[in-house]
Amino acid sequence: MLEDRIRRPSLLDKIVTPREAAGLIRDGMTIGMSGFTRAGDAKAVPVALAERAKTDPFKITLLTGASLGHDIDRMLTEAHVLARRMPFQTDPTLRAAINRGEVMFVDQHLSETVEHLRAHQLGPIDYAIIEAAAIREDGGIIPSTSIGNSASFAILAKKVIVEINLLQTLDLEGLHDIYIPTRRPMREAIPVTACDSRAGLPFIPIDPDKIAAIVITEQKDSFSTVEPADDDTQAIANHLIGFFEKEVQCGRLDLTLNPLQAGIGTIANSVLAGLAAGPFHHLRLYSEVLQDSTFDLFDAGKLSFASGSSITLSSACAARVYADFRRYKDRLVLRPQEISNHPEVIRRLGVIGINTALEADIYGNINSTHVNGTHMMNGIGGSGDFARNAYLSIFVTKSLAKGGRISSIVPMVPHVDHTEHDVDIIVTEQGLADIRELAPRERAVEIIRNCAHPSYREELLDYFTRAVKRGGHTPHILEEALSWHARSRETGSMRDAARSEAAE
Amino acid sequence: MLEDRIRRPSLLDKIVTPREAAGLIRDGMTIGMSGFTRAGDAKAVPVALAERAKTDPFKITLLTGASLGHDIDRMLTEAHVLARRMPFQTDPTLRAAINRGEVMFVDQHLSETVEHLRAHQLGPIDYAIIEAAAIREDGGIIPSTSIGNSASFAILAKKVIVEINLLQTLDLEGLHDIYIPTRRPMREAIPVTACDSRAGLPFIPIDPDKIAAIVITEQKDSFSTVEPADDDTQAIANHLIGFFEKEVQCGRLDLTLNPLQAGIGTIANSVLAGLAAGPFHHLRLYSEVLQDSTFDLFDAGKLSFASGSSITLSSACAARVYADFRRYKDRLVLRPQEISNHPEVIRRLGVIGINTALEADIYGNINSTHVNGTHMMNGIGGSGDFARNAYLSIFVTKSLAKGGRISSIVPMVPHVDHTEHDVDIIVTEQGLADIRELAPRERAVEIIRNCAHPSYREELLDYFTRAVKRGGHTPHILEEALSWHARSRETGSMRDAARSEAAE
Repeated sequence: MLEDRIRRPSLLDKIVTPREAAGLIRDGMTIGMSGFTRAGDAKAVPVALAERAKTDPFKITLLTGASLGHDIDRMLTEAHVLARRMPFQTDPTLRAAINRGEVMFVDQHLSETVEHLRAHQLGPIDYAIIEAAAIREDGGIIPSTSIGNSASFAILAKKVIVEINLLQTLDLEGLHDIYIPTRRPMREAIPVTACDSRAGLPFIPIDPDKIAAIVITEQKDSFSTVEPADDDTQAIANHLIGFFEKEVQCGRLDLTLNPLQAGIGTIANSVLAGLAAGPFHHLRLYSEVLQDSTFDLFDAGKLSFASGSSITLSSACAARVYADFRRYKDRLVLRPQEISNHPEVIRRLGVIGINTALEADIYGNINSTHVNGTHMMNGIGGSGDFARNAYLSIFVTKSLAKGGRISSIVPMVPHVDHTEHDVDIIVTEQGLADIRELAPRERAVEIIRNCAHPSYREELLDYFTRAVKRGGHTPHILEEALSWHARSRETGSMRDAARSEAAE
Repeated sequence: MLEDRIRRPSLLDKIVTPREAAGLIRDGMTIGMSGFTRAGDAKAVPVALAERAKTDPFKITLLTGASLGHDIDRMLTEAHVLARRMPFQTDPTLRAAINRGEVMFVDQHLSETVEHLRAHQLGPIDYAIIEAAAIREDGGIIPSTSIGNSASFAILAKKVIVEINLLQTLDLEGLHDIYIPTRRPMREAIPVTACDSRAGLPFIPIDPDKIAAIVITEQKDSFSTVEPADDDTQAIANHLIGFFEKEVQCGRLDLTLNPLQAGIGTIANSVLAGLAAGPFHHLRLYSEVLQDSTFDLFDAGKLSFASGSSITLSSACAARVYADFRRYKDRLVLRPQEISNHPEVIRRLGVIGINTALEADIYGNINSTHVNGTHMMNGIGGSGDFARNAYLSIFVTKSLAKGGRISSIVPMVPHVDHTEHDVDIIVTEQGLADIRELAPRERAVEIIRNCAHPSYREELLDYFTRAVKRGGHTPHILEEALSWHARSRETGSMRDAARSEAAE
């Protein structure tokens, strides 16, 4: 039964228990693990690692593609296994440890981690732990529902542990396109000139002798935590549809739009799904994670092709998609995240990037990562890879958070992940600000008028008006610029109690 | 005599005075002008434009490559001709008008302006005004000492005014490589795979019927305003040489290094020239402006090839270089700034980007543009194009400014042009901080210890230590984070008078 999963007979001897595989890892090692947005993560060995650390304490540097499922980051954090972690995470327990300064977290553009490994700025990787659908006769690894950084981890690692997951369908074979950029200084152009370009191999080519252990698992991916669309996300989608329609009317886009990218999470997923209601057709995705919205758009007949680095679905959507995966497969490709997020390809294709902001300031700077400028949420992920090189860089957010106590439009963001130079469009449920080719003073008017919630609009305008009196290309009142966040830290609310009372 | 400069006889009829050419420009027009870092700018028509506006007021949107020489931005500002200006400037009079909010300045990545034009997000260009060494028989324009955005301006403009500058040597012919990316969605890879790749034409191909007027000039480029190296810039260069030597020792680089880029200005120029003292050889530049340092490195036998978008030299260096230009010519190429600064090429080549910071914060965020977070200096220029995609993104600055009243290392920068995600190395005359793969708390220690001036170090450490007590991935004390800048705005100094007294 295992012969179709482990097609190189000599490797059958490498099958061990998760505990035995975990025993290979030594204190101080750097580990590269598969997993990108809860998809295709190694599921058994990391659990055994956490278990082992309870009696045999050790620390590792853990690199992944992006976020892991199955509470793995929680278990590893609670077992105090993580000394360093990069380039992305979404786990509440790990997040708290990062914010306490217990785990050194390096918040990195998702396209860059393997460049750093290849250039020996990072690493070397002692063990790669990679989930696979199968191992080929030549030792090549057929990944499962994500590629992420798995290919380069496995290629660059000293040794590889493979988790063969029997619940990942063998229909995944042929889905992947593993292209690794050639070495500098002789690096060639990346031969991806369209969403459906294929440039590489359908498996990760490694020397089979590097495979130190194989573990058999039988466990589904964690399902997506994306929430359904609500009135606000629908309003954001509608504003975007209206904007795209206008771009079509004035000849800047046609109804197939440019290739689309949508960030991880509820809002971007809802916005993308919302495009099905527009007049667009033959859409293409050049994105990182393919969420429910991808398959909703396929089923609505709106989408021609989707390129990503992982497939992360809700329980219902996963049941639908994997029951008949071959229906979608020839319109899908998964790539290493270095390629799905590569500046070269994003700029070439003219990708329209839609990413979620934590907050935006009145001049168009975006904070994607730090609550109150200090506390890490998840990480920048791929948003920077796209925003910096997109044809259109769009950020979406609801105008309010925490029941209205927090405004997502603020005088100055206390942490900048995307600078004013890299932001074209900001959308909230209130409206859309098109800040292309505008000077900061012009942007402020657009953003406050179109994006801020009415309950904060007057106070923002008042700040801007008083700041302008002080002059400057980008007017600010420095001693007041971060006062909304200071207040929020103290009271849990950005609302100025004195001001609110005076207004009553 | 003009036949070698205007090789299409029918165009000789187009020769007019600068005043006549300026008369073609109407109120409200968008004008694209040649000129990049004071090199190859149109010299006569803009002066006539400013003159005309004194009696016949009108406004234009002015696009250039980068900065202009010959006080043209001053004259146009004083004549109130500029409604909008992009993507870069360095003129004190224009800067003041920008900061008063009189001129709407769009501070843009230099690689992006023509993408926006091509996508009709900007423009259309009514007139391109382009300095040329000559016009070919087929109407093709041979630029002079810069390309900048001239090629796309001329190709996309409705009409073109050419300034033939008789003082620009005809030896410039053949220096230029005009490659324009193909149109999306069929855009091909940019065929530049090495500093010395040639991918395009040695002239700007346009329909000769678009040439509305030709003006003859005889005026040198403004000379570079770069100042000579001093002890501080020499110390910065020495720290970088030491760093590169260590990178070579551990096998990450070889003695030819990766292709180098150095930003505009005194510090980057001095640092680049300083590399001549190191053990490096066969260096290559993939940069935007080729300054004196380029030719110093050629003459020192250290440089194999230099690719840029303009040549901007001091008076002495210009005399030396242009007296025998053919000696250098086959080791030089000038490209459109879209290509010299293109993310695709920068990432492919693995460029080492060396750019000047106005200030850096303890977590590695860089402010390149805004004094006290509000007042524009020059603009981001190409620094973002390089920093975002470089193999190594290096920022240099002196640790002190204004006679010690300003620290260039601060708790939090009040404007971010380059985020913590895009900065690898920070160097001041005090030392070098290698913040690659470090978490923010680790970076702070490195930056404060290695880069801050001793007279501010203790106060920075005190801030950091107190911030850490509040917790967070990137600890800050929000109500204090910008207090150094608020103080500097009030008193002209970041030094805390109370604190300094207490210390005495």
